[in-house]
Amino acid sequence: MPVGTQATVKAVPQDVLEDLGVQILLGNTYHLYLRPGIEQVRNLGGLHRFMSWDRAILTDSGGFQVFSLSDLRKVTEDGVTFRSHLDGSSRFLSPETATAAQIGLGADVIMPFDECTEYPADASRVRASMEMTLRWAERSKRYFEEHKGEVPWKSHQPSAISRQERTGRQPMTTDNCTQALFGIVQGGMDLALRKESAERTIEIGFDGYAIGGLSVGEPRALTREVVESTLEHLPKDRPRYLMGVGTPEEIVEYSKLGVDMMDCVLPTRAARHGLLFTSEGKVSIKQARYAGDQGPLDPNCPCRVCQRYSRAYLRHLYAANEVLAQILNTIHNLSFYLDTMRRVRHSI
Amino acid sequence: MPVGTQATVKAVPQDVLEDLGVQILLGNTYHLYLRPGIEQVRNLGGLHRFMSWDRAILTDSGGFQVFSLSDLRKVTEDGVTFRSHLDGSSRFLSPETATAAQIGLGADVIMPFDECTEYPADASRVRASMEMTLRWAERSKRYFEEHKGEVPWKSHQPSAISRQERTGRQPMTTDNCTQALFGIVQGGMDLALRKESAERTIEIGFDGYAIGGLSVGEPRALTREVVESTLEHLPKDRPRYLMGVGTPEEIVEYSKLGVDMMDCVLPTRAARHGLLFTSEGKVSIKQARYAGDQGPLDPNCPCRVCQRYSRAYLRHLYAANEVLAQILNTIHNLSFYLDTMRRVRHSI
Repeated sequence: MPVGTQATVKAVPQDVLEDLGVQILLGNTYHLYLRPGIEQVRNLGGLHRFMSWDRAILTDSGGFQVFSLSDLRKVTEDGVTFRSHLDGSSRFLSPETATAAQIGLGADVIMPFDECTEYPADASRVRASMEMTLRWAERSKRYFEEHKGEVPWKSHQPSAISRQERTGRQPMTTDNCTQALFGIVQGGMDLALRKESAERTIEIGFDGYAIGGLSVGEPRALTREVVESTLEHLPKDRPRYLMGVGTPEEIVEYSKLGVDMMDCVLPTRAARHGLLFTSEGKVSIKQARYAGDQGPLDPNCPCRVCQRYSRAYLRHLYAANEVLAQILNTIHNLSFYLDTMRRVRHSI
Repeated sequence: MPVGTQATVKAVPQDVLEDLGVQILLGNTYHLYLRPGIEQVRNLGGLHRFMSWDRAILTDSGGFQVFSLSDLRKVTEDGVTFRSHLDGSSRFLSPETATAAQIGLGADVIMPFDECTEYPADASRVRASMEMTLRWAERSKRYFEEHKGEVPWKSHQPSAISRQERTGRQPMTTDNCTQALFGIVQGGMDLALRKESAERTIEIGFDGYAIGGLSVGEPRALTREVVESTLEHLPKDRPRYLMGVGTPEEIVEYSKLGVDMMDCVLPTRAARHGLLFTSEGKVSIKQARYAGDQGPLDPNCPCRVCQRYSRAYLRHLYAANEVLAQILNTIHNLSFYLDTMRRVRHSI
C-alpha cells in the first residue's frame, strides 16, 4: 500500500499507479487536515474525486503524524492539542474530530485515533497508553456509528471532471455507502498487553484490525516476535493490517505470517534519496560506479524504467538533481514492492 | 521544440513526451559538457541512446549558457574561458571544442559556437561581435567537415537497453550517418547588419539557418521587426530556426512569418512556477481562487491533465510543493504549445 501523504504518491501520476497495479493507497489525515483542509476536500466530493483515484484509499487517523511531526503537543484524555508544522497554528485532534475528518475525506478504510506508544517505555506507561487507546477506540467507534452516513460522496453533485463517470466505475465504498473502520492494537513490546489489547479491541468490534506501535526504533527481531504473537489473537476472517512496515524482506516475512495489508514510506522515500530495491539487492544509484553502466537497474524487473533506461542515465539524473530521477526511481521501487507482494501471494 | 537541458525535459518521462507528439527536443551542450561530460555520453553511445530518445535532438553550441550562467568568462578570438557554475573549475569552449562536443553528443542537428551580442550595444560593438561570430562560424564549419565522421553511433556496440533496438527504429541521423550543422545569424537589432550576417553565413554554407541574439531584453516589436527582416534573407528551402522564442502568441506569429523551428524554456519553466497557458489565457494556479475550482485547467484541452484533474487539485499540489505539480503542469504546457503549433501548421 503506497503512501500518498498529501493526496499524491510523491512523484507518480495516478495513471502510472494504475498501470503498476496499485489497488489501494494510504492518505495522511494529518496532512490533509492541515492542507487543503477537510471541508475543502469534502466540498470537492471527497478524497477519491479530489485526487481522481477510483481505487481504494485508506486514511490513517493523524495520530502518528501528530506525535512525529508537530511541536508542543499536549495529550489529555480528551485528545491532543498541537501546533501545525506548516504555520504554527494551534490545532486539536481527538477520537471524535479525527473520525469526523476521515468521514469528511471519505476513504474506503479509516482508522481510529490512537496513541502510538514510544519505545522504549516502562510497563506502567505502556499499559496507561494502551488503556487510553482502548478508550479512544470506543469513542471513535461511537462517533463513527453516529455519523457514518455523512460521507461526501452521498451528497456530492457529479462534475464533468470525475474519472468515476468517465470510466463508469465507482469507488468501492459506494457499494454499501459506508466506510470500513478498523481497530488498532497497541501494547508496546509486551506480548501479554498485546494479547489484552487485541481481545479488548475485538470486543469493541471493527471491520479489520491493525497492529500499531511497531517500527518505532525496536530491534527487528522484537518487531517480528510482537507481530507473530499478536496475529494469533486477531480474527482470520478480517483484514489484518501491519502499520508502517517495511523493507522488501519484511513484507515477505510478514505476509507469510498472515498479514494482509502493510503501508510504508520506504519504497517512495528511499527512491527519492536514490536508494533502489532490486532482485540483486539494494542499489545506491548516486554512486560513481554506475556513471558508465549501460545495463538496466534490475535485469529481472519488467517495469517501464528497467525496460527503457540505463543505470548510467538514472545516475546522471540523480547527480544532476533532476525531477525525473524522483519519478523514475519511485516508479521502479513501487513496481518492485508490488511484484514482491504478488510473488508472495502466489506462493502462499 | 521543448528544452531538455540536462538530457531530460524537466519533470516529464520520455514516454509521455512521445505520447505528446514531441518530434524533436533541444539539449544544452554547456550542461552536458559539464555533467556528465562529453566523453561519458559518447562512451554510452551518444545522447539519443543515453537518454533513450530515438526521435530528433538538436544541441546548441553552449555559447549562450557560457554567457548567461558562468562567472569570470574571458572572450578572446580563440574562444571563451569560463568558470563552471557547478564547481568553479576553469573551462574553455571554442568553435572547435564546441563542435567536437556536439559531434560527441551525436545530436541530429548541431549549432556553431557564436557570440550572443548583448542588448543594448553600440554599433561598433554589434559589428565586431557579428564579425567574430562569422569567423567562428567558418572555424566551426571547417572543424565539422574534418571530424563529422566521428559521431558516437557509428562505433557504438548495441546494448540490451536500447530503445532503438526494441522498436526497430533508428535515430534519424543514422540514415545518412552525419549530423546537420546550422548557421547562426547575429547582428543585434541593426537590420543592415542582420542582412550582411545572413548573406555571409549563407556564403559559408549550412544545412539550416538560425536567428540568434533575440529575446535578450529588447522590446517585442523590435524582435518581430528583426525576425521579419532577417527571414527575407534566408533561403526558404532550408530550415529556419528562431532561437529562444517565445510565448504562445509569439510562436503563432513567427510561424506565420515563416519560421520552421523554435525552442523556448517558457512552457516548461513557467509550468514549474505554476504559470499555465490555456485557450482562455494564462492561469496562475497558485492563486487561492482555484482552491475550490472543480473544473479542468483548460476545458478545451485534450491533454491527460485536463482530462483527469481539477484546478483545485492542481492548486493543492502546487501549494503543497508536490513534485506531481511540476509533472502535471509541464505536461499540460507542453501539450498546449504542441497543439498551438499543430493548429498553426494546419492553418498555413
